[in-house]
Amino acid sequence: MGINSNRVEHYSDATSHETTVTICSAEAMPNLEVHKVCLPPHKTTLQKLRHRLSEIFFPDDPLHRFKNQTWLKKFLLGLQFFFPVFQWGPNYSLKLLRSDVISGLTIASLAIPQGISYAKLANLPPIIGLYSSFVPPLIYSVLGSSRHIGVGPVSIASLVMGTMLSETVSYADRPILYLQLAFTATFFAGVFQTSLGLLRLGFVIDFLSKATLVGFMAGAAVIVSLQQLKGLLGIVHFTSKMEMVPVLSSVFSHKNEWSWQTIVMGISFLVFLLATRQIIGHLPKGLNPPSSNMLYFQGTYLGVALKTGIVTGILALTEGIAVGRTFAALKNYQVDGNKEMMAIGLMNMAGSCSSCYITTGSFSRSAVNYNAGAQTIVSNIVMSSAVLVTLLFLMPLFTYTPNFILAAIIITAVIGLIDYQAVFRLWKVDKLDFLACICSFLGVLFISVPLGLAIAVGVSVFKILLHVTRPNTMVLGNIPGTQIYQDISRYREAVRVPSFLIVAVESPFFFANSTYLQERILRWVREEEERIESNKESTMKCIILDMTAVTAIDTSGIDTICELRKMLEKRSLQASDSRNQSIRPLNLDQFSKF
Amino acid sequence: MGINSNRVEHYSDATSHETTVTICSAEAMPNLEVHKVCLPPHKTTLQKLRHRLSEIFFPDDPLHRFKNQTWLKKFLLGLQFFFPVFQWGPNYSLKLLRSDVISGLTIASLAIPQGISYAKLANLPPIIGLYSSFVPPLIYSVLGSSRHIGVGPVSIASLVMGTMLSETVSYADRPILYLQLAFTATFFAGVFQTSLGLLRLGFVIDFLSKATLVGFMAGAAVIVSLQQLKGLLGIVHFTSKMEMVPVLSSVFSHKNEWSWQTIVMGISFLVFLLATRQIIGHLPKGLNPPSSNMLYFQGTYLGVALKTGIVTGILALTEGIAVGRTFAALKNYQVDGNKEMMAIGLMNMAGSCSSCYITTGSFSRSAVNYNAGAQTIVSNIVMSSAVLVTLLFLMPLFTYTPNFILAAIIITAVIGLIDYQAVFRLWKVDKLDFLACICSFLGVLFISVPLGLAIAVGVSVFKILLHVTRPNTMVLGNIPGTQIYQDISRYREAVRVPSFLIVAVESPFFFANSTYLQERILRWVREEEERIESNKESTMKCIILDMTAVTAIDTSGIDTICELRKMLEKRSLQASDSRNQSIRPLNLDQFSKF
Repeated sequence: MGINSNRVEHYSDATSHETTVTICSAEAMPNLEVHKVCLPPHKTTLQKLRHRLSEIFFPDDPLHRFKNQTWLKKFLLGLQFFFPVFQWGPNYSLKLLRSDVISGLTIASLAIPQGISYAKLANLPPIIGLYSSFVPPLIYSVLGSSRHIGVGPVSIASLVMGTMLSETVSYADRPILYLQLAFTATFFAGVFQTSLGLLRLGFVIDFLSKATLVGFMAGAAVIVSLQQLKGLLGIVHFTSKMEMVPVLSSVFSHKNEWSWQTIVMGISFLVFLLATRQIIGHLPKGLNPPSSNMLYFQGTYLGVALKTGIVTGILALTEGIAVGRTFAALKNYQVDGNKEMMAIGLMNMAGSCSSCYITTGSFSRSAVNYNAGAQTIVSNIVMSSAVLVTLLFLMPLFTYTPNFILAAIIITAVIGLIDYQAVFRLWKVDKLDFLACICSFLGVLFISVPLGLAIAVGVSVFKILLHVTRPNTMVLGNIPGTQIYQDISRYREAVRVPSFLIVAVESPFFFANSTYLQERILRWVREEEERIESNKESTMKCIILDMTAVTAIDTSGIDTICELRKMLEKRSLQASDSRNQSIRPLNLDQFSKF
Repeated sequence: MGINSNRVEHYSDATSHETTVTICSAEAMPNLEVHKVCLPPHKTTLQKLRHRLSEIFFPDDPLHRFKNQTWLKKFLLGLQFFFPVFQWGPNYSLKLLRSDVISGLTIASLAIPQGISYAKLANLPPIIGLYSSFVPPLIYSVLGSSRHIGVGPVSIASLVMGTMLSETVSYADRPILYLQLAFTATFFAGVFQTSLGLLRLGFVIDFLSKATLVGFMAGAAVIVSLQQLKGLLGIVHFTSKMEMVPVLSSVFSHKNEWSWQTIVMGISFLVFLLATRQIIGHLPKGLNPPSSNMLYFQGTYLGVALKTGIVTGILALTEGIAVGRTFAALKNYQVDGNKEMMAIGLMNMAGSCSSCYITTGSFSRSAVNYNAGAQTIVSNIVMSSAVLVTLLFLMPLFTYTPNFILAAIIITAVIGLIDYQAVFRLWKVDKLDFLACICSFLGVLFISVPLGLAIAVGVSVFKILLHVTRPNTMVLGNIPGTQIYQDISRYREAVRVPSFLIVAVESPFFFANSTYLQERILRWVREEEERIESNKESTMKCIILDMTAVTAIDTSGIDTICELRKMLEKRSLQASDSRNQSIRPLNLDQFSKF
């Protein structure tokens, strides 16, 4: 702002908003009008720390409702805070119930086939998918703050759990161990999610940017589709790995069989669709059996369960919270990210003890729920009840569900995850976001699911660091007839102010960019000198550093600015020797006190 | 700048400098004067990419001297570019030589005891320290671009090499293997340094901020001092580990011996100083023997050598480049960081083949060199020659150097690394820098040297990420009589503009902070509404988002702003229902096109 500030003198401390230094000599700017502003109010270190910590961990000020309230009111508000059911419960009406019953039954009709197919995606018995649509929605409806979310298993977390566990243990060979690991991973996911919420570290999931998720999901979708090649080509000796290269090499190393199959494929697919009477197997009647005795807290596979739990936990959170926020935004209410994490985490911990695997707010289910007119989370209770009835009485009806229906649901769900339009939009708007997307896509495809995710997060962090280590700098010029100064390379109207060089820095002055900024500013000075020399313009008298966008300076930054001043002072002496001109250095006395 | 811009309408693309959105209705600001600026010149994706890459990798524009030159001139400039000796060589005079000889002999007198003691710090035979003061300075004087650097072994890299190698191999037990590993680590350090320079990744060392280095060096100094307890207390059964806890527990577990020693210590120390005639052992006459046959590229210890090489390489680079830059700044010439890396890397690769261990520009040696009046890097050649004479003829004189002199030098050098004043200054100026410093100090002290370094870098990166994920936001008010708008919590003079809420955002709008910013801005709106309600002021009509410091927006940021607009629109409708007031949302039509 300094440049636009009617020549005002500002002094500020290291963290001030206003750090522009625009001190010029009286000859250079004869009508200098100095307007001193007061110092900011003094704060002790403790006050500053408290303020900073509350901004980091409590940006939404969750306790603001409790201010200036009686004790009884505070207790009621606290109850509502921890159990949102007390918030909407008292105002619940028959009219709302009608909407909720309709939407609840609608999502139940989706939940049953979805539950079965997603459980297969995670290599789990189909009944687990149904169990998972019963207990977690009940827990969520007491604790959750979203009103439109549809709770249940989701494709991406199921897929990742299946991929990561199958690399170590095969369900076909050791079904009990596989189930144990799945429940344990779900338990760890729940613990991880709850503790993220308790520690108010919700911003961790912000590092999974939309761009990386688009790439990640597309990669995962390709992997799952490739897995279907086993069935499609009828290959018997298939790899147990999940990455693209072993799967494809497995496909191509059986070419002798394969050339056969490609010809037969079309016909066999039809025959498959028409003639198969494959059954999904016996589906036991009855409610979720307890599974807390299946949790597995020791032994060689604990690491796998822990890793799977953290990865699926973070993926489930990302989807659940994004879904919650989306529908909350549509209906104009707030969803507290940290409370949502605790709700999702607790429901997974409870789920892991009642034969459920990982669940969260499902995008497809929530969308159906919302469109069917759900008003409160009661629709989830209705869905649970419908699943309960199914589990108790209707299970035999599903025994003869042909496997190809499940396969069709899986493929449809999975192919829908590839969002070409989003990729194209990323390419158009932000090339680095596009790069992050492609990296996570290729990482998942060629390396592995958790490593692909790590690469995606790495690229995103790298993008932030790149912006900080290599910030934009530019030379500003005046737009005639205004007090506006703009980048002369972008605004053709902008003209240089004779004898002045105005350099704008577009980032905080940090240890990570202080060397770069010093070099870059000196290069701007050198280039300006060369330009002046070749054009025979008036000599440079003053360098102005526009620090409008410099929102913070650390100790290295202060050192660099002081050093820059020294270097410009030296240069000024030399220049006045050789060419009788002086480059006036920045006035940085206010930094010297540090 | 928007707020100070005399009500100018700006449209911009996602990466523009100017992203303020200050569209208000005509009723709200009746004298609205619209000044449209032109669009920035069109650039193709390739042009943008080239520009961006050149800013990332070639910020100093190293080839600017080659522009508009004849071929012969270009060749000469290229020769000077790769071998700076051709730059200063032709103008070298007898007068310069006189200064260089004096300073060269001065640093040689420092180099000999320093070389011996630093080699002991690395657990290497003393003669290696002397060898290391002979070959590398010669290589550097041909390739290096600094004129005042004094090349040789340095305390911190020696200490780290000694610590890291001794954890795996003891010099006392397997001297040949230890030497092999030291030379191999030096070779890897050289390769690593050279490739950093070649790939122009010099900014990697910028992540070792001064704050973390202060803590790191203090921690290392304490560790080395603790190691001296073995000698001071005369404990026989001493741990081979380097961390504080095992060393102290080793000291205290031998209390029976130790209580004895504490009493004796004072006397023994005196006796030690006066009576000991310990010798440092036989020092072989003669030049550096070749050691390329000692390089060790296979087997179990390769990992240790590689790790040690990278850690010591990066530490050596940090010191060398910081020293080079410091003295270049004093004499007003430029040191090219990437070229320096290549010079230091090549001299270490050459050194590893001629019985030298890791060297770099030493701070103490360079300071002495500069103060003795060195004019060019020839002083290093003089120092080399003096070391050569020593190696050839004077070695027997050093045979009887008592070990306590070496110990004294080590302790003096090491204790000097603890910079209390810098720590105090960090605490005063920047608490997060102080935290980084303390973390690296404690990490080195209680965990291990490379992990301590990794923690320090982690804290520094976390600091950057924290600034990006939790940016400052503030409400601005007008300073009466000016066009300046400032944070009302900092500037008591600033007053709110009635019916307007002006919120400033102090960071790029990234995926990592978009959720936070959305929540925080909505909280500002809510708080302003509550304040208006309690003070019975005029209703809020317009929300202005000051994005002066928002230097970039990615796709998530654009989505968030669009969503924010939707939410404010919804709220505006509700508000006009209940309280007959309307909050005018941001005009973000220009974002919709993405």
